Amino acid sequence: MSPLEFFRLQTRQEVLALYDRFPPVGVEEVELAAALGRILAAPIAAPEDVPGFLRSTMDGYAVRAKDTFGSSVGAPQYLEIKGEVPMGVAPELGIAGGETLRVPTGAMLPEGATAVVMLEYTAEHPDGTLEVRRAVAPGENVLKPGEDVAREEELFPAGRRLRPQEIGLLAALGVTRLSAYKKPRVAILSSGDEIVPLNERPGLGQVRDSNAYLAAAQVAEWGGLPLGHGIIPDDFAALKGSLATALKGADLILISGGSSVGTRDLTLSAIQALPGAEVLVHGVALRPGKPTILASLGPGNRTPLLGLPGHPASAAVVMEVLGRPLLLRLAGFTDQAPWGRTLTAKLSRNLAGATGREDYVRVRLRRADDILWADPILGPSGLLSPLVKSDGLVMIPLGVEGLFKGEDVTVRLFGGA
Amino acid sequence: MSPLEFFRLQTRQEVLALYDRFPPVGVEEVELAAALGRILAAPIAAPEDVPGFLRSTMDGYAVRAKDTFGSSVGAPQYLEIKGEVPMGVAPELGIAGGETLRVPTGAMLPEGATAVVMLEYTAEHPDGTLEVRRAVAPGENVLKPGEDVAREEELFPAGRRLRPQEIGLLAALGVTRLSAYKKPRVAILSSGDEIVPLNERPGLGQVRDSNAYLAAAQVAEWGGLPLGHGIIPDDFAALKGSLATALKGADLILISGGSSVGTRDLTLSAIQALPGAEVLVHGVALRPGKPTILASLGPGNRTPLLGLPGHPASAAVVMEVLGRPLLLRLAGFTDQAPWGRTLTAKLSRNLAGATGREDYVRVRLRRADDILWADPILGPSGLLSPLVKSDGLVMIPLGVEGLFKGEDVTVRLFGGA
Repeated sequence: MSPLEFFRLQTRQEVLALYDRFPPVGVEEVELAAALGRILAAPIAAPEDVPGFLRSTMDGYAVRAKDTFGSSVGAPQYLEIKGEVPMGVAPELGIAGGETLRVPTGAMLPEGATAVVMLEYTAEHPDGTLEVRRAVAPGENVLKPGEDVAREEELFPAGRRLRPQEIGLLAALGVTRLSAYKKPRVAILSSGDEIVPLNERPGLGQVRDSNAYLAAAQVAEWGGLPLGHGIIPDDFAALKGSLATALKGADLILISGGSSVGTRDLTLSAIQALPGAEVLVHGVALRPGKPTILASLGPGNRTPLLGLPGHPASAAVVMEVLGRPLLLRLAGFTDQAPWGRTLTAKLSRNLAGATGREDYVRVRLRRADDILWADPILGPSGLLSPLVKSDGLVMIPLGVEGLFKGEDVTVRLFGGA
Repeated sequence: MSPLEFFRLQTRQEVLALYDRFPPVGVEEVELAAALGRILAAPIAAPEDVPGFLRSTMDGYAVRAKDTFGSSVGAPQYLEIKGEVPMGVAPELGIAGGETLRVPTGAMLPEGATAVVMLEYTAEHPDGTLEVRRAVAPGENVLKPGEDVAREEELFPAGRRLRPQEIGLLAALGVTRLSAYKKPRVAILSSGDEIVPLNERPGLGQVRDSNAYLAAAQVAEWGGLPLGHGIIPDDFAALKGSLATALKGADLILISGGSSVGTRDLTLSAIQALPGAEVLVHGVALRPGKPTILASLGPGNRTPLLGLPGHPASAAVVMEVLGRPLLLRLAGFTDQAPWGRTLTAKLSRNLAGATGREDYVRVRLRRADDILWADPILGPSGLLSPLVKSDGLVMIPLGVEGLFKGEDVTVRLFGGA
């Protein structure tokens, strides 16, 4: 019995459930200025209040709110202007009943003030009095200390990916270093006697190593560190040696095998020959992507290996559907957006599913008459060009015969972490 | 008359139309391995055919298709097995009528073969004949030379952003260097007497320089190179000097001014005092973001300056709505996805618009019972925390009084280039 037949096809959900055994790869300190896109390894609590003081949000006049009650254009109140609050310092003057100070946006309110009247509802008179034409409530046009963020409030959980706005808030709080998960180091190997490096002109029967470049770019886009390990011939000893070398410096190994039965068997034997190797999955109920391998390797069995199909489009789909969740798991990412990088579009033609497999169809998005259409881009999985013409994937679930033209479908978009 | 009153508010569309005067910043050669996310400065045509030879897409047997016509399980045809095609080389043997060669996935077809019969529809007999149980049409289970990409075919237009699949296709073609637009260098200045660096503890009345960090992260996320120019006091000579210095090494200047009338006027005067400066916009019909400035500076009037409001949330929205398109214009990006980083969700409460201004409301996405809801996150524009709680923006158009609970709205997602 060939090793291929040992395994039944596993579903995507079964494969994803196996990822629990692989912990995030480790933690490091990161400077805030370099933290964009990094994933928090620990929750962050606010070290102080923001704002730190009672602050005006408008250009106007600091007042005791009750001094303005009843003011209107027809019946204004009059206050005595005592001076002006400068930016960036604590005001020296306070105000008592009937008094006011000019205050610019962002400045601190003086002692005694509870609100700010906006410039446009006032007039200054030559004798130093202020005419107030509108009443303000206490707290109006001001931010209280801690109103944006209160000290000790948990800002972000572990597993959160830092966007520009998180960086901005951490800057406001003076958090200049933080604890982030390390970026997973991903060894990328290409196996096959027919594969030549990019700078060589392939002879007849040969192809360039495009899968390694595609996978490396996906890894980089999703927040990993791709490490190129080159091209390995279809030879047991060479494969085993290269895998052992890759294992020493990687948190994840991607090996893009040949797509023929013989080279798949060879890859599988080389994996199984590594000390402590366990093949968890060999064959997934996906189209494309059936000949996918998942194994655990190395000390403590903690380093995952994903064996990708040789067909470029199959490899790319398996990376999207199985590689990305594995990489994000290793990267400590747990805070997926509720829209999940998907959107809804109308299918522009009927699609037949694959018997016994979840079927992933490449689609291009097209907007016409305010409707977003998903146009299937068909073609054999050996082709790269349909992938290039696509914006994402539509999945036909296991057991569903097909999808109909005009149906609303969920499009899983390419790209983004 | 103050300079503020010189200008009427301009609409977003009017501001965007002014960007035509700013050309992309320049072109450089980029290695393919470093080209992810870069924007093509010239169209790329395929230098050769992919595949370069007639290739099998299945494990099976290379045949003359007509030799299999009429084959079925009940009435198989028999062919003579002449040997096997190895991977990675041109086959030495060809086939004539009634002959076949074993061929693995990815291998080159021998002379005379027009199709491949899949392994599972065959049986090898001990006498060296192959039983064929299914007919194949000419071209079945093979890729013809140029079927993926034909030589001289235009692959990508200028202005295309390179994703992993584009990198993969270029690798297959042996394109190791390409011409990309330079990343725009973006000088980031913060002005205001109240602003202190991150490593200082702000005194009463002071705040840390969060806007610069937020803007720098947005610039990096959208493909620019942020250059920090630090904090400038509210002083005409200091502002003018800093702007002149920034202009020397930047393709775009972002200055986040104070939000008070006085500091805005000061910023505007400093801009106008630079040689050749032209203030194009002072005040935009946006909420938040009204006190936005657009100017052109420098030799040939080709360097744009965007003056951002001081309120963090206003600055972030102006960057999304006006800064991002400006940066992408300078970066040469012209190939926006048809979904435009938007998706449709149901609004979870009524929203009133802003009179005379396009109104941008922060929303958080939430999925419940398979419905994607947009929950407005309200709060003054001086706050950072609502921005952190949001996934994107919903726009209430100019002249629309408001949006209703339950209405389908377009959410412009944060992030991504």
